[in-house]
Amino acid sequence: MTKSNSKDFSIGVDLGGTNLRIAYSPAHGIFDSISIPTRLDAGPHGVIDDLVRGVRDLIDRFAAEYDLAGIGVGTPGPLELPAGRIHNPPNLPGWDGFQLRAALESRLGREIAMGRDANLAALAEYRLGLGRQLRIGSLCMLTLGTGVGGGIVLNGQLWEGANGMSGEGGHVIVHHDGPKCGCGSSGCLEQYASGTAIARLARERLQTGSAPGLRTLNGQNPAFTGEDVYHLACSGSPDALEVFSRMGVALGIGLASMINTLNLPLYVLGGGLVSAWKFFSPSMFDEVRRRSYVFRITELDRSDSIIPEAVRTRIMPAALGAEAGLLGACLLALPQDDLQFERFAEEREVRSLERPQAF
Amino acid sequence: MTKSNSKDFSIGVDLGGTNLRIAYSPAHGIFDSISIPTRLDAGPHGVIDDLVRGVRDLIDRFAAEYDLAGIGVGTPGPLELPAGRIHNPPNLPGWDGFQLRAALESRLGREIAMGRDANLAALAEYRLGLGRQLRIGSLCMLTLGTGVGGGIVLNGQLWEGANGMSGEGGHVIVHHDGPKCGCGSSGCLEQYASGTAIARLARERLQTGSAPGLRTLNGQNPAFTGEDVYHLACSGSPDALEVFSRMGVALGIGLASMINTLNLPLYVLGGGLVSAWKFFSPSMFDEVRRRSYVFRITELDRSDSIIPEAVRTRIMPAALGAEAGLLGACLLALPQDDLQFERFAEEREVRSLERPQAF
Repeated sequence: MTKSNSKDFSIGVDLGGTNLRIAYSPAHGIFDSISIPTRLDAGPHGVIDDLVRGVRDLIDRFAAEYDLAGIGVGTPGPLELPAGRIHNPPNLPGWDGFQLRAALESRLGREIAMGRDANLAALAEYRLGLGRQLRIGSLCMLTLGTGVGGGIVLNGQLWEGANGMSGEGGHVIVHHDGPKCGCGSSGCLEQYASGTAIARLARERLQTGSAPGLRTLNGQNPAFTGEDVYHLACSGSPDALEVFSRMGVALGIGLASMINTLNLPLYVLGGGLVSAWKFFSPSMFDEVRRRSYVFRITELDRSDSIIPEAVRTRIMPAALGAEAGLLGACLLALPQDDLQFERFAEEREVRSLERPQAF
Repeated sequence: MTKSNSKDFSIGVDLGGTNLRIAYSPAHGIFDSISIPTRLDAGPHGVIDDLVRGVRDLIDRFAAEYDLAGIGVGTPGPLELPAGRIHNPPNLPGWDGFQLRAALESRLGREIAMGRDANLAALAEYRLGLGRQLRIGSLCMLTLGTGVGGGIVLNGQLWEGANGMSGEGGHVIVHHDGPKCGCGSSGCLEQYASGTAIARLARERLQTGSAPGLRTLNGQNPAFTGEDVYHLACSGSPDALEVFSRMGVALGIGLASMINTLNLPLYVLGGGLVSAWKFFSPSMFDEVRRRSYVFRITELDRSDSIIPEAVRTRIMPAALGAEAGLLGACLLALPQDDLQFERFAEEREVRSLERPQAF
């Protein structure tokens, strides 16, 4: 079999606290991935063993037909770049100070492209999702999942900051006296706009007796999750809807601070919680409009705006689904001018990734 | 007289709500400026008449000896770029929608470089102040004056955002339920870290009777200002010091949100209030350290840090003084690779601008 292109596949890894996912991003619109449980009890070196084995399996499967352009690895933060060193990550206990880049490069015998997971999701959304669809060069993405991640792309490049630690929109402070956050601060956006936060907000309202409509949650399962609150909201429960409305207010405060600081044309909300867009977005837009004069002047839907439509401010749900971070890891490992991307996106293979997300 | 260099002077204008300042930025370390009261009652066209006259006077004085490289104009925000249109500025009543660029270019018969005043101060601090001294490529500057302005330089370029409205660190929300801000939001950093805010904070504490040490302010002048509170703090009054300590807490919250979002190596505080650095910075650093894990990992003074010193996070008082915005307007009008800057800075003429600032 002859090789079809000199540089036409990359491997992306999403090293999460629960699963280790490894994907193969090819030239011709094929996308294959494997998922392995992250063996946290095996420590960093055990997890690296699994990762290296998975990567080697993929290389063996495809290297006869394609040339490997590179390997990209996404990790939870804090990840120090360019060193590739992990700093005390809440989702990877025992990894503080671990030299991930050095360990991977020595085991795999080649350079590894590295990035924080939420940054890589932003990169994918920029190159294959809304950034591409809207032909917009800069965006900020917030990933609303178990926690709230974030990433920033400026003029087509990931803005990783001085140490790889930028884009942490989940740790913009929205209520200075709010609940304690895992990061050491209190009242961070993550305490209001994550799946964990939705469950906590519902419990708080139950405890104060202010939301009798939520009692059914406790009745069905005292360990109910944010997803359970979402399903109750879908059934029309005003008390469940109110929880999402409060989430929207917090998102509005956080976004207003970011919009006033960054003045980007696009803020993308991704992650599983974005399924609840119709529940939280009305209060979010009300709050952003009230809080950010930059948004008021520049917002897309302002009918009397004299600002060119292409540079007005949009806040939108993500086009890519749960695989955005993994796609971003694949993208990171390919040369930026690689036209394979374009073909990849054009062939709409990306659509196959838009599976319904876990909440 | 022969011309000494083909492109060796620029004119910078700072169009403020109180004064219109026009400066001449030469090749050989001479810097001359004039200041004209802004005739707000004459409306935009009257002010433009004064501005054009001042600029023409400077051109006439220097054009025989030097070639004019360009004219840069800084204005209060919101300024829409690249259009050069003013949007409802609090400091320039009656200017909403005014096409400032078009008016100036038509009157002066040449292209005008434009920027928001606080962005231009950040540019000057980057090129002639701390950015230069520390050889740092990116910074965020907050200008603590009557209000709080801000500007961001990323990789050596002003980050102006999609519409020229980025960098508004004064409108990062620090207390979501705080005092109403002129921008429409409430609890913005500007409500805690500006001269106006210091006077308000002191009045609030007087009214609640919690700070008897401040009564002397009211006794001397019921219309006391932030500067009066500053002088009282200089005399050692614990109640006046407490006002600055609270300002520091608010700055810490706002900076933590920005540091977690941007992860820059340098945050510069400028403007008149920076005179009170020793009063507000201890509580500011305590709060930033508590609120921002990015800062905790990367801070300059962390003795056990393994992060290279050059990319650790610094928060510092500005090197340039009250003329930073005007210098930035001059810089904006010169080609970026113009080595005149270097000579300019090296000859330490910039020092002559570090006059004691008005508070």
